[in-house]
Amino acid sequence: MNDSHSTLPRKDLFEIPEGLIYLDGNSLGPLPKTVPARVNAMLQAEWGHHLIRGWNLAGWMEQPLSVANRVARLIGAADNTLVLGDTLSIKVYQALSAALTLRPERKVILTDSGNFPSDLYMAQGLIRQLGAGHELRVVDPENVAQEITTDIAAVLLTQVDYRTGRLHDMPELSKRAADANAVMIWDLAHSAGALPVEVEESGCEFAVGCTYKYLNGGPGAPAFIYVRPDVVSEIDPALAGWLGHEAPFAFEPDYRPATSIERFRVGTPPVIQIAALDEALTLWDDVDLHELRKVSVSLCEQFIEEVEARVPQLKLVSPRDALRRGSQVSFAFGEGYAAMQALIERGVIGDFRAPDVMRFGFTPLYIDGADVSRAVVILEEVISQNLWEDPKYKAVGRVT
Amino acid sequence: MNDSHSTLPRKDLFEIPEGLIYLDGNSLGPLPKTVPARVNAMLQAEWGHHLIRGWNLAGWMEQPLSVANRVARLIGAADNTLVLGDTLSIKVYQALSAALTLRPERKVILTDSGNFPSDLYMAQGLIRQLGAGHELRVVDPENVAQEITTDIAAVLLTQVDYRTGRLHDMPELSKRAADANAVMIWDLAHSAGALPVEVEESGCEFAVGCTYKYLNGGPGAPAFIYVRPDVVSEIDPALAGWLGHEAPFAFEPDYRPATSIERFRVGTPPVIQIAALDEALTLWDDVDLHELRKVSVSLCEQFIEEVEARVPQLKLVSPRDALRRGSQVSFAFGEGYAAMQALIERGVIGDFRAPDVMRFGFTPLYIDGADVSRAVVILEEVISQNLWEDPKYKAVGRVT
Repeated sequence: MNDSHSTLPRKDLFEIPEGLIYLDGNSLGPLPKTVPARVNAMLQAEWGHHLIRGWNLAGWMEQPLSVANRVARLIGAADNTLVLGDTLSIKVYQALSAALTLRPERKVILTDSGNFPSDLYMAQGLIRQLGAGHELRVVDPENVAQEITTDIAAVLLTQVDYRTGRLHDMPELSKRAADANAVMIWDLAHSAGALPVEVEESGCEFAVGCTYKYLNGGPGAPAFIYVRPDVVSEIDPALAGWLGHEAPFAFEPDYRPATSIERFRVGTPPVIQIAALDEALTLWDDVDLHELRKVSVSLCEQFIEEVEARVPQLKLVSPRDALRRGSQVSFAFGEGYAAMQALIERGVIGDFRAPDVMRFGFTPLYIDGADVSRAVVILEEVISQNLWEDPKYKAVGRVT
Repeated sequence: MNDSHSTLPRKDLFEIPEGLIYLDGNSLGPLPKTVPARVNAMLQAEWGHHLIRGWNLAGWMEQPLSVANRVARLIGAADNTLVLGDTLSIKVYQALSAALTLRPERKVILTDSGNFPSDLYMAQGLIRQLGAGHELRVVDPENVAQEITTDIAAVLLTQVDYRTGRLHDMPELSKRAADANAVMIWDLAHSAGALPVEVEESGCEFAVGCTYKYLNGGPGAPAFIYVRPDVVSEIDPALAGWLGHEAPFAFEPDYRPATSIERFRVGTPPVIQIAALDEALTLWDDVDLHELRKVSVSLCEQFIEEVEARVPQLKLVSPRDALRRGSQVSFAFGEGYAAMQALIERGVIGDFRAPDVMRFGFTPLYIDGADVSRAVVILEEVISQNLWEDPKYKAVGRVT
């Protein structure tokens, strides 16, 4: 990371409070230092000065597409195959609903029990909406490959498990789906900016993800959706908002979907959030994702090694094989909630996932080997001295 | 407006470029001067300093409900009956989808041809999604009352017509819907902050709206949805996102809707947009909506009177009766697009709606009688001297 030839941004480009070790960029990335000035300029010079004319003069209307192109490179997709907007849950709904219309004769959505609950909930809601007939089939992550059979309409998987960090084999499972003529949907929430992803090469029909984790777009940053160009025109979107219309400002009485990926736009884009995201993404423009991955793996390996050596009370729940793991490491500990609170109070921020998972994200843009070592020292102190037993750490609050 | 007892904010609280007369606050409200500092504080002190802890420490998680309470007062709804999030199109979909599940034996959605196209499109998309059987019945605005028959599942109306400003009689039509046992959904896009609205008193089941027009929340500010408290528990939302779950952080595999209005939340809230909106809403806390309406009517009357006296080439398309009009006035003019461009170049910003409507919004928070008179003088100049004939005004661009 201190290599002068590195393509990775430097830690000092982020606003991280003195002394804090932030191992939770997989929940919410930190503030890039240039974002406040950029947002302020957007507010004053664009909204304040242009008012309604900002939609044209400041390019607000095109940003869901133009800013998405910055994300496209990071997930191995071509320009103009992604669009930004809404939240990840809404994008999951759009993809799933479209997938089912592409395979009207099939009734099963296949997913796994390691998927993020909101993906499961959105599928359940869609199925309720459609009435009787459809089924959400939830299998164990390790059984997904064999469960992709010819009765499956759509396979909905999150590539990196939010709890364990387990990494699905995207090329292999996408190929299985294609062989079974099932529509493949990848949720890249914990992949985009975490490791190299090759969406186009995988052949999947849809990929969705969020931009507030590894991409540092800020709390509530918009989601993205990729749709394989050859299937776009086959889909009549369920969420048929005016900005997905071929001619939104013709105000026609009937919906006529845009010919491009823009048909997956819905309503008015969140212009202020997009300004923050666009600025955050400037840090990514030169990043070599293979270099990033190499450093990420090294940080994760170091963390596992040092925790296992010094804090044997914790049990690794992430895959030990780096090739099967994303950019996070999770350990189980019975009193994980209280232990995480004690850790946070001591300046090491990770998070807790029920029932007993202590989760740590490793983000080479602003975490280095010295941070890892110091985090383990503090973790050892918390566990070996039973500091988590202090009653103040037991109160269950909301941790995202 | 200059009355010292006025409850209306002063023009100097908004960032409006010197010399500009902004008659388009019904598309995008101007920037309240305190918004940039508030957003900057949110970015630096909340995101920058708290990082992930902002969800708890800065109250981000509760804001979709707490900030919505500021909007609730403005539309005559009780605290904790509204929630913020997503875009208006998504909120229309939620309301419509819920309405149909409340009346499973009925198959017709009634709306009118003056409704905003995105509302029609979302209804069309939902109907496609549901498969055969449902119908979107579009009638003339003046025939809506008589068309609310007992085969109607849901009535979906925008109270103020986005083109003409025609105001539906909300209490009367809500009563008709209730009498026919149809579910009533009001779109308040051009009502919230434009005139007094009594959602609770109307008895409607749903009301939705946006916050970037009269409420000045900024481009892409989140939408809101009101659900009558007694029907909330009857609805299993179609858009079943994790933040609408009773216990989002329990990460249960099955969706279990929140008991409150929070069941209409979907994904992660747009925290930066909400900070801007919350700050903008502080200007509304003391506003007496009846005073606002009185001034709005007076500005609209003055505009109509002066335009008809000085610019007879323009034909009024808004209702002449102030009681049947929102807070905007529209005139038809064959070359309306070019004329509006010429007007904008001369510092009077209104907007154009196809095919020939020149639309002007009157917002007493920052427009006064002197602005109205000056706008008419410039309009007269553009029309009487045929300034719109300059070819540069003919290029059709996007106008929102």
